Amino acid sequence: MFAERGYDGATVRAIAERAGVDPAMVNHWFGGKEPLFVAALDLPADPAAIIGEALPGDPEHLAERVIARLLQVWDETGGAQLATLLQSIAGHEVAASLLREFIGRVLVGKVLSTVAPDRPELRASLAGSQMFGLAFVRYVLKVEPLASADHATIIAAVAPNLQRFLTGPLP
Amino acid sequence: MFAERGYDGATVRAIAERAGVDPAMVNHWFGGKEPLFVAALDLPADPAAIIGEALPGDPEHLAERVIARLLQVWDETGGAQLATLLQSIAGHEVAASLLREFIGRVLVGKVLSTVAPDRPELRASLAGSQMFGLAFVRYVLKVEPLASADHATIIAAVAPNLQRFLTGPLP
Repeated sequence: MFAERGYDGATVRAIAERAGVDPAMVNHWFGGKEPLFVAALDLPADPAAIIGEALPGDPEHLAERVIARLLQVWDETGGAQLATLLQSIAGHEVAASLLREFIGRVLVGKVLSTVAPDRPELRASLAGSQMFGLAFVRYVLKVEPLASADHATIIAAVAPNLQRFLTGPLP
Repeated sequence: MFAERGYDGATVRAIAERAGVDPAMVNHWFGGKEPLFVAALDLPADPAAIIGEALPGDPEHLAERVIARLLQVWDETGGAQLATLLQSIAGHEVAASLLREFIGRVLVGKVLSTVAPDRPELRASLAGSQMFGLAFVRYVLKVEPLASADHATIIAAVAPNLQRFLTGPLP
């Protein structure tokens, strides 16, 4: 349904109807449309939830909290799930378009715009480029020393750059 | 041969012998081992050559020149070739290990260490994370506004971050 109608167009009601169950069951088992979508995409974790968890606290250290939480989640699955995800995105336009819409609709709309009101779309795509790239180099390409660096080293190296994308001055 | 023996282990002589040709023919048609490797990996362009072209000039603006040149090369193929490359790397450990060795051996050894003598391996992997991520978001995920932003906008947004990875202070 997400692939057919996009994130906005696929309502929980319509998904439940197609599945032949009560909409309340979808909400009961998945907790809502966004977690259902994350489950459908087989994401290692819900990016919106992670950024939502990282939001409270000093805005100047938002990037540190985001990177710390993402590394924790990614390391738990050893990167294997992430490699599969990146491969399926690179190979399937439907997966790419769903993730693209999800980034625009959920990450930008709900989360980033509360922190950085100016140019949230540009900031989200730039922040995404850094975090996707970090995941790719650490877990898929496995380039050293990033592949086996400890979290503190990566946070110290990458956080200033991510922080600029999130809240710093942009051209 | 590269997959069997790695970049260093696969000599032009051995490759020519396996192919049943004179080593001079390999050099004549491919211009040496590095361009032969780039051809074997089916890279859209030789990253070492691109950074080599960007090296001359003010070191403070190295990142701007690297991004400008890469965007030019990537845009020429519309990103399709890049998506295929990223997919094949995510799906095949051999391709990943070859590219990993290439980054370590050629990019770090030959190029980056001449600009930033301290921690060249960390700088190369960090710079790689930003540029792989930019390529992924712009050409594979196609997240707006990065997907259709003009080169000047991308350079202004990303160059300060890449420049920090290349020559700035690292923890």
